[in-house]
Amino acid sequence: YPIIDAGVCGQHGLDPAAVAKACLRGGARLLQVRHKDAAGAAFLSLAERIVALARAHGAAVIINDRPDIARLCGADGVHVGQDDLPVDDVRRIVGPDAIVGLSTHDERQIDAALAGSASYIAVGPIFATATQTAAGPGRGPGLVRYAAGRGKPVVAIGGITVDRVRAVVEAGASAIAVVSDLLSRGDPETRTRRFLSELSGNAER
Amino acid sequence: YPIIDAGVCGQHGLDPAAVAKACLRGGARLLQVRHKDAAGAAFLSLAERIVALARAHGAAVIINDRPDIARLCGADGVHVGQDDLPVDDVRRIVGPDAIVGLSTHDERQIDAALAGSASYIAVGPIFATATQTAAGPGRGPGLVRYAAGRGKPVVAIGGITVDRVRAVVEAGASAIAVVSDLLSRGDPETRTRRFLSELSGNAER
Repeated sequence: YPIIDAGVCGQHGLDPAAVAKACLRGGARLLQVRHKDAAGAAFLSLAERIVALARAHGAAVIINDRPDIARLCGADGVHVGQDDLPVDDVRRIVGPDAIVGLSTHDERQIDAALAGSASYIAVGPIFATATQTAAGPGRGPGLVRYAAGRGKPVVAIGGITVDRVRAVVEAGASAIAVVSDLLSRGDPETRTRRFLSELSGNAER
Repeated sequence: YPIIDAGVCGQHGLDPAAVAKACLRGGARLLQVRHKDAAGAAFLSLAERIVALARAHGAAVIINDRPDIARLCGADGVHVGQDDLPVDDVRRIVGPDAIVGLSTHDERQIDAALAGSASYIAVGPIFATATQTAAGPGRGPGLVRYAAGRGKPVVAIGGITVDRVRAVVEAGASAIAVVSDLLSRGDPETRTRRFLSELSGNAER
């Protein structure tokens, strides 16, 4: 799934809602909306726009970090990091049936997340990433392999380009999350389609 | 009421929970907790500590900006600014009976806030303030006078020191909110007591 990061879109001179629309046209079934450091009203406004676009395409929306905003915009769930609100607390705001994803960065965090109430776990960075420079070096597909097949879907994240999709899928990833690669080529719609084709194993090679 | 601002406390080398405790000992009946730019888990943790302290003193707690955190820590309400989530949306998270305060900075914002569902409005900056340097110059007690007596309690904020309390109370303020002045003298407990004495009109002059 594409992560629509308002800050990264801004760095590319792109409107995040326009990027979301392009990804949906390219076939994305799930979007995550991230707006770090935004005040609540601006984040809510962007989230509402993207939820409306996603609904028109039958796609789901996950809000990064803020369960209050997820609930207010009618999103399908929340994605939190290790420093954000705990998953159980997020569920107290958005309800037990919402999707709640949790980022993990090493084996210890993966073990803890698998024992908890997260709907899925994100694992990374798999490769070095320009988006979250503080995230450290890539851990490689081995971290996906460590997490996969243990009861929760595993989303691989961090530096995943089209030609690296196969490696993380073979390691057991149920999905991949992409920020930068969808934007840097200037055509998020075509890029989304290429990722999905690669994920489904139908890519021309 | 004291605003326990984790960032400002940090600048003074003070633990925010210790400042909260001192203010409660000094007689504060309401605390606002502010933790700008903190990740959710750290903000929630601080809020929970301060709610526990406040309960032990029979005082109330308002959480700045985040209705999700207010609900999770069992606070009495939320305070939002003009760029934060709208008051009606905040009430959808914390419920209709919670205290929800709204900051206003000019006559137009005051008019809009008085027409809405806020429990109280904060008005300022009344005097120039070092805490929020982007807030602009002080508007003077006249802005309190403009807002007062129109159906909602008015909290004066911004550069209010002990010797300025009388002027804002005479202008119609129901309460004052203080950040810096409680910290800069090194003894928040005694300082809180002096403010409350001045507010009740019993100060030795």
